[in-house]
Amino acid sequence: MNTIDIQLNHRTVREFTDQKIDDETLNKLLEVCNRTANSTGMQSFSIVRVLDEKKRKEIAEVSTQEYLARCPELFIFIADLRRNAMILKEQNADPGTEADMDRFFQGFTDACLAAQNLTVAAESLGMGAVYFGSILNDYDRIIEILNLPPLTFPVIGVGFGYPNQEPQLKPRINIKDKVFIDEYKEPESYLEAFKDYDQELTNYYDTRENGRRSDSFYNQVIQKYNGIVEKRRRVMDSIVKQGFNLRLEK
Amino acid sequence: MNTIDIQLNHRTVREFTDQKIDDETLNKLLEVCNRTANSTGMQSFSIVRVLDEKKRKEIAEVSTQEYLARCPELFIFIADLRRNAMILKEQNADPGTEADMDRFFQGFTDACLAAQNLTVAAESLGMGAVYFGSILNDYDRIIEILNLPPLTFPVIGVGFGYPNQEPQLKPRINIKDKVFIDEYKEPESYLEAFKDYDQELTNYYDTRENGRRSDSFYNQVIQKYNGIVEKRRRVMDSIVKQGFNLRLEK
Repeated sequence: MNTIDIQLNHRTVREFTDQKIDDETLNKLLEVCNRTANSTGMQSFSIVRVLDEKKRKEIAEVSTQEYLARCPELFIFIADLRRNAMILKEQNADPGTEADMDRFFQGFTDACLAAQNLTVAAESLGMGAVYFGSILNDYDRIIEILNLPPLTFPVIGVGFGYPNQEPQLKPRINIKDKVFIDEYKEPESYLEAFKDYDQELTNYYDTRENGRRSDSFYNQVIQKYNGIVEKRRRVMDSIVKQGFNLRLEK
Repeated sequence: MNTIDIQLNHRTVREFTDQKIDDETLNKLLEVCNRTANSTGMQSFSIVRVLDEKKRKEIAEVSTQEYLARCPELFIFIADLRRNAMILKEQNADPGTEADMDRFFQGFTDACLAAQNLTVAAESLGMGAVYFGSILNDYDRIIEILNLPPLTFPVIGVGFGYPNQEPQLKPRINIKDKVFIDEYKEPESYLEAFKDYDQELTNYYDTRENGRRSDSFYNQVIQKYNGIVEKRRRVMDSIVKQGFNLRLEK
């Protein structure tokens, strides 16, 4: 398959075979992460590759997804503003901007871009991948487990390996409804505008889960927005705790 | 080239030929954005495709990169927590969580992943791309230009098209220094650990710019961290202004 066909074929894979990823392949995937575009050449991301069984189980507890611990490979992508802060310090040249939130967002972006590049690369080799946003259910705990120092922050986890399942493609809102020309525009009614998608997603669940679960998009939005993890809501507290300076006007 | 070779070959392209991207190709690239993994199925990103010459120039002024206005295509990726907030509202089912910062970060992540997927797809078709983090030099102005409503936020710009230059590969810090096993670890001295990279980057500039500019990584870190854009430091104020609730403990 060519690259775009691979990308159009993306689906989340959560179950993997026992096949290990050999070192040469793994190094290539890491090189892809390294080659990814980054903000102003500052390369403000790092990866923690989690091998330790105990740590994997602890992270799986945070995410409440037990299969996380079983992924052949588990990478946690980190916004890393620490490295350059230390480089400044060693040169006695710290201008006092290393804890700024725009640096934080640069690191956050760098981490995301590298994670997506990894995912595409893995899929191009016949592997599957799963994003774990759920590791962020408890930021402070993840910071503790991975021993993340000040000016670093967990962004996203990626589990990957050779797939042991073939999930169906999950329908998406029509891209035409997500792309605007020149400025943001809204339909008069979203319930009207996305009616077909709502039905399409319902059909998807009917087929996929053999009728076990029938769910519309509109209903899912209600469910997800009601499913609050209190510690996630406090993400800004964890960011401040890691030494970042919000620099709020008031 | 296969996908990984394309990814390993990534470099920023800033100058493009006049060749337009035909509609079929553009739609395929948009489908790639749409198919990208997203947080909990909520698809919290949007794209503003900027065609209007006046808006392009205004955005180029914010970014201080005049070539931005000349990119054949210019996409601004948006964290979009508005769409689902409206879907909740229409259903009278708003649980009051739609302005939480963890939702913001989900949208931010979705936007980044889609942007990187676009970049890989474009490069796989022989195009080149450039990320514009510099559009964030003035968040409020970008929000104004693109008419971004509450609960949306600009994340990153991507310019792309058929390349009119062949930049050299830019050296990176060794990936081994960015990947940790099981927990974050630091070298005793970064100046010692990255000595070879520092020299490699200096050589790169010597060659690329015919000696016009010679720059080490250590020196670049100093320069970048001194190059403060005051409005960027105030990113959290702009986020609050767009209606997000920081929910700080104090």
